Amino acid sequence: MIAEVLSIGTELLMGQVLNTNAQFLSRRLSALGVAQYHQSTVGDNPGRLKEAYETALSRSDIVITSGGLGPTGDDITKKVLADLLGEELVLNADAAAHVESFFKRMNRPMSKNNMNQALFTKDTMVLPNPNGTAPGAIVPCEKFGAGKVVIHLPGPPYEFEPMFDSSVAPYLQKRSGQTLVSRYLRIFGMGESTVDTLLRDLMDCPSPSLSPYCSIGEVQLRATVLSDTAETGAAELEPLIAEIRARLGDVIYAVEKTDKGSLAKTMVEKLLLKSMSVCTCESVTGGLTASEIVAIPGASKVFKGGLVTYCDEEKQRLAGVSRETLERYGAVSKACALGMALGAREKCGADIAISFTGCAGPDSDERDTPIGLTFIGLATPEGAEVHEFKFSGSRQRIRMLACLNGLNQIRLYLERRL
Amino acid sequence: MIAEVLSIGTELLMGQVLNTNAQFLSRRLSALGVAQYHQSTVGDNPGRLKEAYETALSRSDIVITSGGLGPTGDDITKKVLADLLGEELVLNADAAAHVESFFKRMNRPMSKNNMNQALFTKDTMVLPNPNGTAPGAIVPCEKFGAGKVVIHLPGPPYEFEPMFDSSVAPYLQKRSGQTLVSRYLRIFGMGESTVDTLLRDLMDCPSPSLSPYCSIGEVQLRATVLSDTAETGAAELEPLIAEIRARLGDVIYAVEKTDKGSLAKTMVEKLLLKSMSVCTCESVTGGLTASEIVAIPGASKVFKGGLVTYCDEEKQRLAGVSRETLERYGAVSKACALGMALGAREKCGADIAISFTGCAGPDSDERDTPIGLTFIGLATPEGAEVHEFKFSGSRQRIRMLACLNGLNQIRLYLERRL
Repeated sequence: MIAEVLSIGTELLMGQVLNTNAQFLSRRLSALGVAQYHQSTVGDNPGRLKEAYETALSRSDIVITSGGLGPTGDDITKKVLADLLGEELVLNADAAAHVESFFKRMNRPMSKNNMNQALFTKDTMVLPNPNGTAPGAIVPCEKFGAGKVVIHLPGPPYEFEPMFDSSVAPYLQKRSGQTLVSRYLRIFGMGESTVDTLLRDLMDCPSPSLSPYCSIGEVQLRATVLSDTAETGAAELEPLIAEIRARLGDVIYAVEKTDKGSLAKTMVEKLLLKSMSVCTCESVTGGLTASEIVAIPGASKVFKGGLVTYCDEEKQRLAGVSRETLERYGAVSKACALGMALGAREKCGADIAISFTGCAGPDSDERDTPIGLTFIGLATPEGAEVHEFKFSGSRQRIRMLACLNGLNQIRLYLERRL
Repeated sequence: MIAEVLSIGTELLMGQVLNTNAQFLSRRLSALGVAQYHQSTVGDNPGRLKEAYETALSRSDIVITSGGLGPTGDDITKKVLADLLGEELVLNADAAAHVESFFKRMNRPMSKNNMNQALFTKDTMVLPNPNGTAPGAIVPCEKFGAGKVVIHLPGPPYEFEPMFDSSVAPYLQKRSGQTLVSRYLRIFGMGESTVDTLLRDLMDCPSPSLSPYCSIGEVQLRATVLSDTAETGAAELEPLIAEIRARLGDVIYAVEKTDKGSLAKTMVEKLLLKSMSVCTCESVTGGLTASEIVAIPGASKVFKGGLVTYCDEEKQRLAGVSRETLERYGAVSKACALGMALGAREKCGADIAISFTGCAGPDSDERDTPIGLTFIGLATPEGAEVHEFKFSGSRQRIRMLACLNGLNQIRLYLERRL
């Protein structure tokens, strides 16, 4: 089964919108074991869209469109396909009820053209949209070959992504007759090339498949298998995951059923398990770590608060670092990181404090501290420790790497304490 | 002049990489006045890449490729085009010198296959790459029509973007014989539809052109004109910018020559001008505002530090909010926001303090505070004020909107104080 993505909208060609839908679909299709060889983007132009449909339907079984389902004249996605199929768009009763009820629920008046969103060709399967007015659709295109379909999804990612997961993924699974089971292994503290070297033979194996995804400081591995049921699939993945754990060790910080994990989420979960609280004291990261923790729903049960001691004066005033420490060792020093962690732990009354001091650039400080040099302090009920790092890259990258390494220090401490 | 983007790489079809290059190119091409009607993506497959070249060269004057310039067998971008043109790839002396000097500069050993990156067809114009090993190239494709070219750029955005700006943009400007001058107007506190309504006639005007770009809470307008020189272009844009200012008023917080502005940057600049300092006291935003300020290079001259008072206990301990205030009005209240701002201003010793307390969801608190309700407090040498907001959307969106509205409150205060 071959699928391809056709993104529709002049705003994409003008660069007004970043096409995250294409990446989302690629990940999902690849996890579902559906092949994808082409992606394309066209504007709101009937002639070029018609050509794009013809090309896509000639080479793929399933064409997934994104965008152009709105109520205005620019929204030509459905109309151009209907013309190509030689069919009429007619009012679909289910879709009309959906559009009406959406406006009622939002307490907004409905303008007449909104009913355009309920027009579909007669054999279309309409897909519900809980997050917007435009229903999606699966349109049979037998004219181009047996089993060929176009699937219309709305453009905004907060409508597009849930509709794919709730309606399209089950449809594709049903067509393939099997269930796809995935696990996501999250890795921190090992580079992509090392992971690749250690797991090359496993990645070359076609099933279960293993694909790496990198983000700043992290590698994520997706292990996937096609199986008869979710249970048999999970059982088939177990030996692979055990083997990866044996090879990589404690750089794996989580194994999850979705790709929504993060170091902050794992840390919050581990703190909850141990009924421990944490606080932050941030100079170079400047509130980023606190913000990443607060981004996790339920963080209030384990996160007390924190200090942003950006200038030396605040390191003294708020965290109680001594003037002598700052004068003798400077703000970017092991001694200062230690003082910040110990001071914050006391001021905030938390079990664990993490501190960050460093130089993120673009310019060095008056002591000519090398850009990227960072000290991360950890104060716990058992004592305190400081780790030294040298990060490289932009100011934002250095700050994010510092933040993630701090969260990882807490995660490792909690695992040691088991 | 019509251009199109051809992104090459199986990692894009697997969803391992988000295609930010396509958006970057779309913005730049649109700013340069170059039309773009198609974008496409193919994997590292010679047959499909050949077809993609043929299709793209049949309908566009300039085809810009991204990716596939590396040294390994997967990197087929140049070879497939050379075959299609019936030409040979031969060692280019300039490119070879570049590759060698890059490895020398990085102090890394060069493996033999790296010289593949210096192979080009003989009429190719090689583009220098200061940020990586692979040079780019402009390859004449007269076989497909007069003036047609393929421009090869490397895949990683930190190589791709600077190479476009330093080599490709001047080439395209030279081909068009004119200079493109742009100004970016940044708007906060007015929705896209209102901006659209107020400026519709100006946006419909072909030159100077005016395009809106939206991001969370903000609208950015790009005003662009093709002119003989940068000076004449700037002069032609002036009346348009004055007219937009007259219509929109103080929601315009900056007019800049690049698209790198932000509310935090403008606020830091205004604080510097007035030699004033700021501090933060954050509950719902949880350090996000401090982090956004620290993200601006040079923030250390105006940003003292801040408190993250996430739980009620810290609102008392760190910011000195009274227990009575918390018991009587709750943490999400005007009184608490006021106490937080006044407390932080005193504790941090800054001229201005901004405070945030609210409920970002997904669940409400024990007082059933509506999700999205947020109070932002501002304490200044002249006194204190609190503003109430109701934000909607996800937890992260609510927190970001709160942060941006706080930065905007400081910006408006500084402008009033002129």
